[in-house]
Amino acid sequence: MYAVEVRDHIMIAHSLAGEVFGPAQRLHGATFVVDVAFFREELDPDNIVVDIGRATDTLKATLHAINYANLDDLPEFSGKITTTEFLSRHIFDKMAAAIRAGELGPHAGGIDRLRVTLNESHVARAWFEGPVAG
Amino acid sequence: MYAVEVRDHIMIAHSLAGEVFGPAQRLHGATFVVDVAFFREELDPDNIVVDIGRATDTLKATLHAINYANLDDLPEFSGKITTTEFLSRHIFDKMAAAIRAGELGPHAGGIDRLRVTLNESHVARAWFEGPVAG
Amino acid sequence: MYAVEVRDHIMIAHSLAGEVFGPAQRLHGATFVVDVAFFREELDPDNIVVDIGRATDTLKATLHAINYANLDDLPEFSGKITTTEFLSRHIFDKMAAAIRAGELGPHAGGIDRLRVTLNESHVARAWFEGPVAG
Amino acid sequence: MYAVEVRDHIMIAHSLAGEVFGPAQRLHGATFVVDVAFFREELDPDNIVVDIGRATDTLKATLHAINYANLDDLPEFSGKITTTEFLSRHIFDKMAAAIRAGELGPHAGGIDRLRVTLNESHVARAWFEGPVAG
Amino acid sequence: MYAVEVRDHIMIAHSLAGEVFGPAQRLHGATFVVDVAFFREELDPDNIVVDIGRATDTLKATLHAINYANLDDLPEFSGKITTTEFLSRHIFDKMAAAIRAGELGPHAGGIDRLRVTLNESHVARAWFEGPVAG
Amino acid sequence: MYAVEVRDHIMIAHSLAGEVFGPAQRLHGATFVVDVAFFREELDPDNIVVDIGRATDTLKATLHAINYANLDDLPEFSGKITTTEFLSRHIFDKMAAAIRAGELGPHAGGIDRLRVTLNESHVARAWFEGPVAG
Repeated sequence: MYAVEVRDHIMIAHSLAGEVFGPAQRLHGATFVVDVAFFREELDPDNIVVDIGRATDTLKATLHAINYANLDDLPEFSGKITTTEFLSRHIFDKMAAAIRAGELGPHAGGIDRLRVTLNESHVARAWFEGPVAG
Repeated sequence: MYAVEVRDHIMIAHSLAGEVFGPAQRLHGATFVVDVAFFREELDPDNIVVDIGRATDTLKATLHAINYANLDDLPEFSGKITTTEFLSRHIFDKMAAAIRAGELGPHAGGIDRLRVTLNESHVARAWFEGPVAG
Repeated sequence: MYAVEVRDHIMIAHSLAGEVFGPAQRLHGATFVVDVAFFREELDPDNIVVDIGRATDTLKATLHAINYANLDDLPEFSGKITTTEFLSRHIFDKMAAAIRAGELGPHAGGIDRLRVTLNESHVARAWFEGPVAG
Repeated sequence: MYAVEVRDHIMIAHSLAGEVFGPAQRLHGATFVVDVAFFREELDPDNIVVDIGRATDTLKATLHAINYANLDDLPEFSGKITTTEFLSRHIFDKMAAAIRAGELGPHAGGIDRLRVTLNESHVARAWFEGPVAG
Repeated sequence: MYAVEVRDHIMIAHSLAGEVFGPAQRLHGATFVVDVAFFREELDPDNIVVDIGRATDTLKATLHAINYANLDDLPEFSGKITTTEFLSRHIFDKMAAAIRAGELGPHAGGIDRLRVTLNESHVARAWFEGPVAG
Repeated sequence: MYAVEVRDHIMIAHSLAGEVFGPAQRLHGATFVVDVAFFREELDPDNIVVDIGRATDTLKATLHAINYANLDDLPEFSGKITTTEFLSRHIFDKMAAAIRAGELGPHAGGIDRLRVTLNESHVARAWFEGPVAG
């Protein structure tokens, strides 16, 4: 199994509703350093997992929609608890949809799994991994 | 599959019996930067993998028992070769038992796998991964 | 010249007023991984730069006042642009005052300089360094 | 499942033929920080996954063959596109063959999987993971 | 003293003439993860050391001239030994000139020192630090 | 001012006498990831700060004397409190003496300062910096 992983980051504000979150129930924020890993069984004709330029651009576009935002104000997240785990899945869903829509190029159909990791500090991170097929 | 990983560290002394260990047969020591990853298929009602506060506290308590110690002197490890691999499993067993005992909260039963990584230097690390079920 | 550096982190929300900040003018947030370095010419009688336990506790208390907060709402920062640079200096001032007040122990008077670094992502950080003397 | 991972690095020149590579079609270079992870179900009689000394030596010998080289000039890679993914697999094949040949010691037969990761910058890396059995 | 540091990277090929370089006399390559730190005594009216957007753009433009290149072929480096130290200084000179030319904005004149660090592997790096004034 | 920094590591046991050390008064241990930075005003005729091969070898030899040891048993440290700060200075003294003795080559006389950093965990490190001249 082959994999390629690229990195970018976002800086967001949000609050987390629920007693379990303690002080994070207040409006606060986070830098998420985001790693997206693309997995496939065999390389494409160019000996790559994915066109790293397109992968990076698609990740940047995906993150752009939520970067420098207060997630509490985005209609898309209304009524949702935007934990690091939840956001990992959110970004995963967007990246998987982009692959299925052909945005990562003609050979990207061979990518069968993705993993999206959100590093939130030097002591904590979360990720979601799953198949690209919707 | 969702995951959350938290980090802490210990500083221990030990010696490793066996020709394969070369100079590490002498009494020496290590800082182990310990990462514990919790895996589950679906998030709990709070959109989390685990209560990160409880996870961190349980890890700290688990490490406390062996932190700032000479492992050669602990009855628990008598006659054991306390390699990085062995210690990864040791901490794994304690963390898995804590989950089964309900110490990580009522929803932690959904955690089905753990991975415990011990980073021992900038060039070496070891880990153990397995199911929480005993 | 000797130095010891310890690390902690905060997760805050804020907005930055001024055209130069582009999208960061909107309410967003950041994780700041905070490093505080203590400098002195000679070690104290215990062969240390600072009691690392006290240093860590003082840093935690200093950060507690602004952790999990929206800096835009704190009276202390009213009318201030809370850039990473500004916050480095803010934390520096608090830590230096704690040393002058004797909170880091009787021998901490030998600490003559501090550096406070705020790492905000994998590609950017800021710091302030200066003398402890007020 | 147990794992041990060791690290070394190489510094190589190469060019990548194919429009998808953009400016990397020109002769350029890379530092690859190489991590090799060894996986096995049970520890050997010394409570280890692998003799870390032998693992490190075998990795160094494997890398020596391509270190400080222009990969475009090596007959072994003639007509090949030496992407990071391809090189991960190349090193994987050499390490797996060394295990099968007994070079990592008598107990190394218990190692059933390997993962070879090539970190090429602070924002990109690739890896290949597979069974040791040829 | 305040500082802000930003990061980017380049991937180059080169050879180093001189017995001291051993195998690095052969054509090989490197990824340099480049950190540029900007120092000044007082913050500008926006409470910043430098417009981080302009700083990042200027660094990217500076690196673009040598990225994905074989330094042995660049007229600019003809007859020069392009060590990591030398390249740190080269990038420093370009960044300092950009500041003096006003490319980093009207307030960037307050930046009095720069440090350019080239991280070449997990075990080696080099840097050059000096005044901006030419 | 130019600098080059190289990295290696040691794994030692020790105990720290003095109430200030709390649980570290017990025999425990540490991995120290050791960075040595060499500073000079001008590069040597090969455009380098130091022969990196010799620098690495000298560091390895220096560390060898205390690696995989219980520092409490070394006559050299008898009656000394072997804190991270103290050990930074100890290694500094050895490296500076090696330079003065010509072990880093004929041009190493231009190195005027050294900094030795001991990283002891992901949250703490210490260093000593000073002139090479004895």
